[in-house]
Amino acid sequence: MEYTFSDKLAVMKPSAIREIFKSLSDPTIISFAGGNPNPLSFPVEDMARLSADIFANDAVKALQYGITEGYVPLREAVSARIKAKFGVGTDDDTTIITTGGQQGLELACKALCNEGDAVICEEPSFIGALNGFRSNGARTLGVPLKADGIDVEALEALLQTEKRAKILYVIPTFQNPTGITSTLENRKAVYEIARRHNLIILEDNPYGELRFAGEDVPTYKSFDTDGRVLYCSSFSKILSAGMRIGFLCGNAELMSKVIVAKQVEDVHTNQFFQMLCYKFMTECDLDAHIQGIRELYKGKCERMLAALDKYMPKEITYTRPEGGLFLWCTLPNGMDSSAFVKEAVARKVAVVTGSAFCCDANGTSDSFRLNYSMPSDEDIERGVKILGELAAEILAK
Amino acid sequence: MEYTFSDKLAVMKPSAIREIFKSLSDPTIISFAGGNPNPLSFPVEDMARLSADIFANDAVKALQYGITEGYVPLREAVSARIKAKFGVGTDDDTTIITTGGQQGLELACKALCNEGDAVICEEPSFIGALNGFRSNGARTLGVPLKADGIDVEALEALLQTEKRAKILYVIPTFQNPTGITSTLENRKAVYEIARRHNLIILEDNPYGELRFAGEDVPTYKSFDTDGRVLYCSSFSKILSAGMRIGFLCGNAELMSKVIVAKQVEDVHTNQFFQMLCYKFMTECDLDAHIQGIRELYKGKCERMLAALDKYMPKEITYTRPEGGLFLWCTLPNGMDSSAFVKEAVARKVAVVTGSAFCCDANGTSDSFRLNYSMPSDEDIERGVKILGELAAEILAK
Repeated sequence: MEYTFSDKLAVMKPSAIREIFKSLSDPTIISFAGGNPNPLSFPVEDMARLSADIFANDAVKALQYGITEGYVPLREAVSARIKAKFGVGTDDDTTIITTGGQQGLELACKALCNEGDAVICEEPSFIGALNGFRSNGARTLGVPLKADGIDVEALEALLQTEKRAKILYVIPTFQNPTGITSTLENRKAVYEIARRHNLIILEDNPYGELRFAGEDVPTYKSFDTDGRVLYCSSFSKILSAGMRIGFLCGNAELMSKVIVAKQVEDVHTNQFFQMLCYKFMTECDLDAHIQGIRELYKGKCERMLAALDKYMPKEITYTRPEGGLFLWCTLPNGMDSSAFVKEAVARKVAVVTGSAFCCDANGTSDSFRLNYSMPSDEDIERGVKILGELAAEILAK
Repeated sequence: MEYTFSDKLAVMKPSAIREIFKSLSDPTIISFAGGNPNPLSFPVEDMARLSADIFANDAVKALQYGITEGYVPLREAVSARIKAKFGVGTDDDTTIITTGGQQGLELACKALCNEGDAVICEEPSFIGALNGFRSNGARTLGVPLKADGIDVEALEALLQTEKRAKILYVIPTFQNPTGITSTLENRKAVYEIARRHNLIILEDNPYGELRFAGEDVPTYKSFDTDGRVLYCSSFSKILSAGMRIGFLCGNAELMSKVIVAKQVEDVHTNQFFQMLCYKFMTECDLDAHIQGIRELYKGKCERMLAALDKYMPKEITYTRPEGGLFLWCTLPNGMDSSAFVKEAVARKVAVVTGSAFCCDANGTSDSFRLNYSMPSDEDIERGVKILGELAAEILAK
């Protein structure tokens, strides 16, 4: 038979990034393309021990249906942690466990947006979120991300004409793909604009725990007095990505609809690993574990920056992240990065073209993303050297 | 701030069943209300051993991001099993792993239905599916389920006037909530109607492995020549519900959009438990394990039927399932079951009112659902006796 798809899905294609993953079976390719945490960040021995404990002492609870909101002790532990670390959560808020941070983003849009409503995003932004919004029929509209955060004048200008904006989606800390951290001044200005235009702010903070330089900047949620901010994060970058455990915190009324939406997507998140996360948080030293990841990524980021400083022509600019997994390189004179990226892959170095992160699915970009959490130190040096030589060749043309 | 929700979510309420779960903290209540598999069906020792193996030998793969379609060895093992057991899957088909069967149902609707499109369902039907369809803005339209399957005349009549029907949702074997298994003759007639009206058939078979009497009836998917049937099932009732591992099989073109939709819902399903399922399927005796569950449920179902035969006034009718977890009791003369159910809970026996399974969210029902997988043998006897006495009192009025 001939298939007819829903309008919202008919226009969607698989994420360019995940397609790149699939094509990366060639082991001779140096990949700066992924977004995976380094496997050294998985506390395998502790998790194995805690897992054996659960099977020995609490197996039935771990293998039986749980409630949609999540395993209560984990929700309480997460609430306490994000309150202490990020000032997130008030007496009016509810925290639920989601199947990775991705689900939290998708559910927020599903609960709030009708088809045709707009989600305003940083340009560039995280492709998984953009596609999550599109899958609900929302339009993704980009506002340029500058070195200090969203361009507030461009945001204000957009909102003068766009009357169906419901959500402002931000990754204010170590943004994916750019590595940029918005300043507090920028966040306050953006919050005031969101207030004037009655927008929900969806704050995505998957990398917030991974600061290896500089000082924490207060989260949007920490100074939210209106119940306007939904705060989304996960354990993917600090314990395990494959277990798919995230969380979402926001005003209880808002969350009540998110919970209904989650109930019909997957009933609840894997119960065993919710219990495992809780045990890790209470029986192991999560802070010490995260400190180890920070040091690992600090070293890798510094190495990548040193290689870029050494090999890249000075016309190529790049961000200097204080945490997270990514940095962002920009070619001069608005040059489209797609030819550069294609040639880089031909020379066995994979990076992700900036167009993959455009809010307009057909957009182009002068930039590309580099991941430093996964490659070995040697590959960082070798790969950046190849990219630098390629850039020099292209600029010489 | 005041919140405005999406139209599709604004009208939805939490599932009555899950709300009942929450209120069942009173240990003196005999519950026939749940849908949980019996914990005796969880192969804890084997799972603990396989889990330790994964941590020892393959931890990085289990804790790292995986691909959206699912862990390839598990997909292959599932494909082989459903082909052998249920005739499911052709060379044109793809099988993916989902976060429980629930996600498969929700994704199918998301990929196919625009808001306002109709999903035709058996009346009564599984509330989780109904709400999954509603959460995508689809209308759920019921066609009465009779003892041999969907009322084909009523289905044909509905399709004469309903022009936006996209999906026909069926649970043909040990249906939830009724326990009814459709005959092959009925299935063939329904398939022909679906073909004439260009409907996708979403075949949900979570209980198919749990036959304890009678003979298997061929699945819709086994005689599907058009690529019209999407086949959904899960490991929830045969290994563990809490791990949230399901699967969906259908034509590769159709599945390609489902995969895009899944990618943006949760990236992929818990990788560790996908690997655990695969190991169980290949290193343990899944058939022998399932045979044990069948015998357990056979005993419980027979006990519940014997108690109903003994205690229920003859005006109350009920189904005699050949497998699955549920049976369905109907009061005489179209009597609304809600008062009966309320009084039963007051007498410390919980059942689910039939109205919870109505395709029209405001529908009423003369029936209620009884679960026999969870209660103890003693509770079955005691609880049915209380229900029988209550029914006699109500009929005497």
